[in-house]
Formats: sequence, C-alpha cells, structure tokens
Amino acid sequence: MTHNWLDEIKWDKDGLVPAIAQETGSGKILMMAWMNREALELTVQEDRAIYWSRSRNKLWRKGEESGHVQTLKSIRLDCDNDVILMEVEQLGGIACHTGRHNCFYKELKNSQWLEVEPILKDPDKIYSK
Amino acid sequence: MTHNWLDEIKWDKDGLVPAIAQETGSGKILMMAWMNREALELTVQEDRAIYWSRSRNKLWRKGEESGHVQTLKSIRLDCDNDVILMEVEQLGGIACHTGRHNCFYKELKNSQWLEVEPILKDPDKIYSK
Repeated sequence: MTHNWLDEIKWDKDGLVPAIAQETGSGKILMMAWMNREALELTVQEDRAIYWSRSRNKLWRKGEESGHVQTLKSIRLDCDNDVILMEVEQLGGIACHTGRHNCFYKELKNSQWLEVEPILKDPDKIYSK
Repeated sequence: MTHNWLDEIKWDKDGLVPAIAQETGSGKILMMAWMNREALELTVQEDRAIYWSRSRNKLWRKGEESGHVQTLKSIRLDCDNDVILMEVEQLGGIACHTGRHNCFYKELKNSQWLEVEPILKDPDKIYSK
C-alpha cells in the first residue's frame, strides 16, 4: 500500500502539521490541533479526527474520553502543503473541553477578550466516568 | 495604552501564533498563516490581516502586492490562547497566491490530493505591476 499522499505533507521540525476542524453544515471552526504522520494516517483510516497531543505527547483520538468524536467528511491540504483542513461532524455538538460548542469562544472587544459562547455542558460531567 | 490582551496570547517558541482567516458570509476558510506580536497588534489597529512571513522573515500586509486585502470583521482566540481566528472580508475574492479563492484547494480522494478549486485569475496577472 502506498502512502505517497502522506509524503507530500510538509511536516514542521517536530514532525507536525496544524489541523483545523470545521463543522459540516454550520461551517463553524471547532478547533485547531496538531497531527503527526501517524495521526493523519489514522484519521483517514478510521474516518475520525485523531490528533497528536503535544502536552501529553501521545495520540489523541478526539472524543476518546468525552464521547465527542469528530467524524471525518472530507480532508483538504493548503497550497504550501503545511496545513490540514477537515470537514467533520461533531458528535454531541461540543468540541471544546470547556463544554462549549467550539474552542474559539473569546472575542476581542475594546482590547479585552470576552467570552461570547455559552457553556453547553459542565466539563465535570463530560469527563467524569 | 495597555496591551494586556496581547499578553494573554501563548506565543510559541518562535514568538508566533497560527491565525486562521475565515470568510464572512460564506464561512469558508481562506488560509492559515502566522502572526507575531507586532503583526497581531497591527491587524487590530489597521483592521486588516497582517501576518508574519516565515519565509521572508518580515511583516506581510496581506494584499500589499496583489490588492487582495483581508478586511477584519472580528477576531477570536481559542481556549488554549494559542490560535487566532479572524472573520474577514476577502477583497477581490481571491486569497491564494495561486489565483484561487482559498488556499485549501487540494482534497484527498482515493489516496491522492486532487485540485478541486478553479484558478480565478492567472497569478502572473495578480503580481505583475
């Protein structure tokens, strides 16, 4: 099995690329995280977003604890071959670990970052099992 | 004048953050590039996307050569304070240096990156002045 499509990616010096997750339908940006070669390959194989967690230094199957899996609809690459854009379905309607729909919930207004998205579910309830 | 909002950003070890440009109205992702502190401050001051070009190692006022300026509508920050999301109006309807609407014009199909967006303007005509 050839993996030439993976060889076309311009990985950074840590072997990573940024991956943006955009919600199908709404078009909203859910989050941006990082992928290494294995994460990207598995994302396509398993049809769900799998990132590389830089803080935990391991593969991160998005939703593995929360159930908030991102099902892959399509995957794109930019002109410089160094950014991935995924169209995904967000199970549970919550992408952010804070319990919000998406991670971009702070908006700059009058030189202040204001929280402009509601918390849909208490994070303690998302992660307690 | 205080710039506390800039101090809240988690810059990477090169002093940069990824900045995603999303088109107002269509919701399409136009591109992702990088900003340093000065670029982000100027973006807000001048109400247009200003990036840090890692290849040219200097500020990059998007559209300075092409005229394809990105006018800032709003600016958001993610939960980890390390990714910027801008809502912009794309002047000329072309964000990519290849003459396409946006930079994410390659889609993975059957293990191949296929070009799925048309070239709207010959790049030679965009940059020749």
